[in-house]
Amino acid sequence: MLLKTDARAQAWVDAFSMAMPELEVRLWPETGDRSEINCALLWGPPPELFDQLDNLEVIFSIGAGVDSLLACPNLPAHLPIVRMVESELTAGMVEFCLFHILRFHRLMHLFENHRVRRHWEELTQVSASEVTVGIMGFGVLGQALARQLSALRYRVIGYRRGPGEVEGMEVFYGTNQLEEFMGRSDILVALMPSTLETKKMINSRTLSWLPSGAYFINAGRGDLVDEEGLVEALDHGSLAGAALDVFETEPLPQESILWAHPNVYITPHIASITHPPTACRYIADAISRHRQGEPWPHLVETGRGY
Amino acid sequence: MLLKTDARAQAWVDAFSMAMPELEVRLWPETGDRSEINCALLWGPPPELFDQLDNLEVIFSIGAGVDSLLACPNLPAHLPIVRMVESELTAGMVEFCLFHILRFHRLMHLFENHRVRRHWEELTQVSASEVTVGIMGFGVLGQALARQLSALRYRVIGYRRGPGEVEGMEVFYGTNQLEEFMGRSDILVALMPSTLETKKMINSRTLSWLPSGAYFINAGRGDLVDEEGLVEALDHGSLAGAALDVFETEPLPQESILWAHPNVYITPHIASITHPPTACRYIADAISRHRQGEPWPHLVETGRGY
Repeated sequence: MLLKTDARAQAWVDAFSMAMPELEVRLWPETGDRSEINCALLWGPPPELFDQLDNLEVIFSIGAGVDSLLACPNLPAHLPIVRMVESELTAGMVEFCLFHILRFHRLMHLFENHRVRRHWEELTQVSASEVTVGIMGFGVLGQALARQLSALRYRVIGYRRGPGEVEGMEVFYGTNQLEEFMGRSDILVALMPSTLETKKMINSRTLSWLPSGAYFINAGRGDLVDEEGLVEALDHGSLAGAALDVFETEPLPQESILWAHPNVYITPHIASITHPPTACRYIADAISRHRQGEPWPHLVETGRGY
Repeated sequence: MLLKTDARAQAWVDAFSMAMPELEVRLWPETGDRSEINCALLWGPPPELFDQLDNLEVIFSIGAGVDSLLACPNLPAHLPIVRMVESELTAGMVEFCLFHILRFHRLMHLFENHRVRRHWEELTQVSASEVTVGIMGFGVLGQALARQLSALRYRVIGYRRGPGEVEGMEVFYGTNQLEEFMGRSDILVALMPSTLETKKMINSRTLSWLPSGAYFINAGRGDLVDEEGLVEALDHGSLAGAALDVFETEPLPQESILWAHPNVYITPHIASITHPPTACRYIADAISRHRQGEPWPHLVETGRGY
């Protein structure tokens, strides 16, 4: 296994030694004999990483989002790419979104503004069953969030690129149904992948379709959002607040107006990260099943960009 | 039905006309002929309310907490008192506690402090499965919260006054086990009723039993907490933050140090309120079952104070 990761290399090496003690892990750029490498686990690979990896059979993505991987010009087009789907990554995303949904639904941002002024005032609150959460990007993460929200009695609707039933859920799809989906979303959660199609999909035009007083949560990718349009919707439009974990430019520049905008909450791309121990068990399981003739799980479709 | 409520009398009258159209609701102090009254739904009754209610058979409490009702000196000792247990009240409490648990677990209070300073910094986060939430007061509300927390993979332990199993949960009970319970609680949630026994049960001594860096959430009653001891634990002890919805004095006085204490979150007793529509269906159901010979549900034990 060739490993190219972010700062947590040792955690990955340790996790592999637990999950697959027989596996030899080589840490980029210490590849050794490149012809011996048949699988790779990657985050932000440099183009030269793929040179002479003639026996590479499969690529595992460290992140749930594969945009940085697909952006690599030398990515071998014929190889299967397995998306990261592991319980801790999913759980972290559900927690992050749930926290902000609860905040906006229960008006905790207003109570927090009151606290600063030492102001004691009950505010009329509505039941979760009167709040519709619209989840844009309705794959593994979106559906996990939907299940938790349903257990808390929120109304949940999903939006996805193409048709596809999700049991017990109302799902919209395609650009034709986007306006109706947005019009129903009291709290909009963006979890889509970054692709050519989703770039700046959240802009002043689409945000204007939200109900008055709606809230927006972006836990997907920064380039889903036209930040100028977002600020416009917050200033003059119907948007009452936003929670943003990802941005057009990261780290969010010091001079960004978003830092100090009222009712905008900023986090530094921490909604969820892959946990090496559970991730390595997922990889071990995928490899073992593949050896028994099963297909690779959660394959990325490079043609559609995710 | 004699109704003495807070400010939302019309909502209750409307809800009764939906749930029990045959029921005559009389709004205190317009009692009419008092001998005709056989049930009462009460919040903060004045002592004279009970005068000449010779045919009163049952008292329903508007709140889940019955301390203000039991404090009424003229409360007829022989009558059954039915605690309010309705789905919206439970849901609101679960939402409130869950929000603050997610905040503290996911370090959202620290990210919020960073945002104000336009500071971008990832912080190491732990998995929910590494966080133990201790729920003090493990009745209907506490167990509902525990179920949601378990679904989110938190470790949950409960504390209650006396012994009693709760399926799938580790429950501590009695003063002998309090120190062990507190010592395990990374996030402590107080949901106990206000009784002679629970008064100032959260104080500098018991707070010192919490693990270093613990958090405290009070969604029960203000007098469970010795506020001086709480401030001491925040200033010099192991407590890293608190979310408080209830206080020794409400509204929280302007001069209270709690308003401006770092990492203390104040809300104006809004964690959860009884919703008339679901509450009236609960009352209608209880009355109908009682007419068929079933016992009253969720009876208050006045001897123990809740």
